[in-house]
Amino acid sequence: MNSAMQEQTMRLQSLPRFWARRCLAIEAFCRDSLGVDLRGTRLVVAYSTGLDSAALLHLLHILAPRTGFSLIAAHAHHGLRPESDAELPHARKVCAELGIPCETARLDVRGHQAASGRGTEESARLLRYEFLESVRARYDADWIVTAHHADDLAEDMVLRLVRGTGWPGLGGMPGVDSKRRLLRPVLDWTKEDLHAFALACGLAWHEDRSNQSTDPTRNRIRRQVMPLLRRENPSLSRSVLNLWRLARLDEDFWNTELTRERDSRILTHRTLATCHPAKRLRLYKAVLDGLGPGQALSGHLFLLDRAWADKKTGTIIQFPGDKTARITPSGILFERQ
Amino acid sequence: MNSAMQEQTMRLQSLPRFWARRCLAIEAFCRDSLGVDLRGTRLVVAYSTGLDSAALLHLLHILAPRTGFSLIAAHAHHGLRPESDAELPHARKVCAELGIPCETARLDVRGHQAASGRGTEESARLLRYEFLESVRARYDADWIVTAHHADDLAEDMVLRLVRGTGWPGLGGMPGVDSKRRLLRPVLDWTKEDLHAFALACGLAWHEDRSNQSTDPTRNRIRRQVMPLLRRENPSLSRSVLNLWRLARLDEDFWNTELTRERDSRILTHRTLATCHPAKRLRLYKAVLDGLGPGQALSGHLFLLDRAWADKKTGTIIQFPGDKTARITPSGILFERQ
Repeated sequence: MNSAMQEQTMRLQSLPRFWARRCLAIEAFCRDSLGVDLRGTRLVVAYSTGLDSAALLHLLHILAPRTGFSLIAAHAHHGLRPESDAELPHARKVCAELGIPCETARLDVRGHQAASGRGTEESARLLRYEFLESVRARYDADWIVTAHHADDLAEDMVLRLVRGTGWPGLGGMPGVDSKRRLLRPVLDWTKEDLHAFALACGLAWHEDRSNQSTDPTRNRIRRQVMPLLRRENPSLSRSVLNLWRLARLDEDFWNTELTRERDSRILTHRTLATCHPAKRLRLYKAVLDGLGPGQALSGHLFLLDRAWADKKTGTIIQFPGDKTARITPSGILFERQ
Repeated sequence: MNSAMQEQTMRLQSLPRFWARRCLAIEAFCRDSLGVDLRGTRLVVAYSTGLDSAALLHLLHILAPRTGFSLIAAHAHHGLRPESDAELPHARKVCAELGIPCETARLDVRGHQAASGRGTEESARLLRYEFLESVRARYDADWIVTAHHADDLAEDMVLRLVRGTGWPGLGGMPGVDSKRRLLRPVLDWTKEDLHAFALACGLAWHEDRSNQSTDPTRNRIRRQVMPLLRRENPSLSRSVLNLWRLARLDEDFWNTELTRERDSRILTHRTLATCHPAKRLRLYKAVLDGLGPGQALSGHLFLLDRAWADKKTGTIIQFPGDKTARITPSGILFERQ
C-alpha cells in the first residue's frame, strides 16, 4: 500500500500542469477517438484497487465536475488471491473519501467453474462483467468504464497475431463497445503514464504482485514475450496506438462500405461478383457476426471465398458458433443451427 | 553436408505423390496469389547452398520442363563466415549436376561497410541484391527468385509490429516486387515443409549452424521471440499466411481506390474532404512513396491528417527520405528536398 494523500482535496487546479492537461485530454479522447460525449453521463468504474483502476478512478473523479458526469465505483471480490481480502475495505474507504458510491460483490468463481466447466479466467471474466452490468443497470448508467491501457493493447495485438486474427481485428480491443456498454477512456495512456500519475498524486493502490492473468497463454505472452519486444522498441505501446487508430478507421470504413448488405442472410452471386475480394471477406465476416457469437477465423473466410469463386455449389463451410455458409445456385446462404 | 542423391535423375514423376503435388502448386501460387505466369520466363535463383535455397533450386529444376521456364543460379560468397569457403565449390558442383548455369561472386562486405559507413547486414544485403540484379540483367532474365518462406514471413510481421508499421504493410513482405524484379515462389511453404522436401529427396545442403542474421534485432526476434510465439501456436506460420493474403488483397484494394490521385504532388482540400480518413492516410502514403525511398510511419501520417483536419495552413510535416508535406491554402503539397 502506498502512502495516501487527502483524497478529497484532489481538484484539477491542484494537479501539476502536465497532468491537468492529460486529465482533460481524456474527455477529448472519448469524444474524438471513441465518439462518446461524456457530458451528462453516468459512469460505472470497474475498480479493483490496483494501480490502473485506482488511477482511472481518480482521473475521472477530477474530471467529473468539469465535464459534468457522475461516477459509481464497482469492486468485484474474486477470492482467488489471498490479498483480495484487504482490497474490499480499501475500495470502500477510498470511495467514501472521494464521495463516490461503491458497489461490491463477492464472486463465486470456483463455484461457477465447477458448474459451467469453464476455465478460471473465463469464469472470473463472465462473473465480473455480469456484476458490472448489474450495477450499470441498477443505476441506469451509460457506460461501464475499464482501465485498459496501451500496454494491454500491445499485449492484446500480440495475442491476436498468435491466434490468427485478421484485419482490422488484429488492431486490438475497441475503445468503445456499444453492445456491452463498455468504455476504455485511458486506452491511449501507457502503464508508465498511469504509474507516473499515481505517484505524482500520491495515490494509494494495491500492488498485484503476481500481475498474473489466469489465462496461461496471456500470462506467458505478458511475462516472456512483451519484455523482449519492448527491449527492441521501448515505445512499443505508443507505436501500437497508431496501429490501433488505423484499425478503428478501417473498421469504420468497412462498416460504411457494408451498410447495405450486412443484414442479409443470403449474398447473391451478383452482389459478390461486383465486390473486390477484400470487401467480400469483410462481408462474409459481417454477416456471420450478425448471426450470433463465435469468431470467424480468416482461414475459413478464405476457404469460403475460394469455394464461391470456384462455383462449388453445395459446399458447406462450418464456422464457430454453429454457423454455416452454403454455396447455393443463387449465392451464399448463411445460417445458424 | 547431407548425403546427396544423383541430382540429375530428379523428375516430377519420380517424386513422392505428395511432393509432386506441392511442387506443381508452386506454379499455381505464382499465378493465382502473385499474379505471375512462369511459362516462358527466365529465372535467376538466389542460391546460398543453405536448406531453403537448395530446396527452392531443386523444386524449380523439377518444375522447369513441365511449366516451361529456364533457370540460372546465382551464388554470392559473403566471406563473413568460415564455412563460406566450402559453399562456393558445392554450389558449382550441384549446378553442374543439374545442368544449371551457376554465376558466382565474392562480395567485399567489409570493404563496402568501411566505405559506406553502413552496417554489416545492410552492406551484405545491398551487395547481394546488386549482384543478383547484375546476373538478371546479363541474362535478360525476368525474375530474381528467393527462398523466403512462411517462417520468414511470421518473423517479418513481428519485426514490422515492433517497428510500428501500419496496415497493409504489417502483413509482411510481398510475394512479388515488380520494381526490384523479385519473386518469392515458396512464401506459402513453411521451413518445415522445405526441410521435409529436402529430406524426402535426399538433397545436399550446407547447414548454416548460426542461422544468424547480422541484424541484431532480427536475430533476437528470431531466436528468442519466435520460439515463444510458436509454443503458443505451433501453426503460427500457416496462420500468418492468411494475414499475409488479407494484406495483399487490401493492398490491391487501396491501390485500386487510389489510382487517380496517387501521382499527384498536391492533394486538394476538395479531394481530401470527400475521402474517408482510412483512405486519406493511404493517399498520403501513396503520394509519399511515389516521391522516392523512405518509409512513412503511421504516426507521422496521423499527424499530417490531424494538421489538415485542423486547417493548420503553413504546417510542415517531415518524412523519412527528406520528404515533406505542407498544408497550403489549396490543399497539401508534397515535396522531396
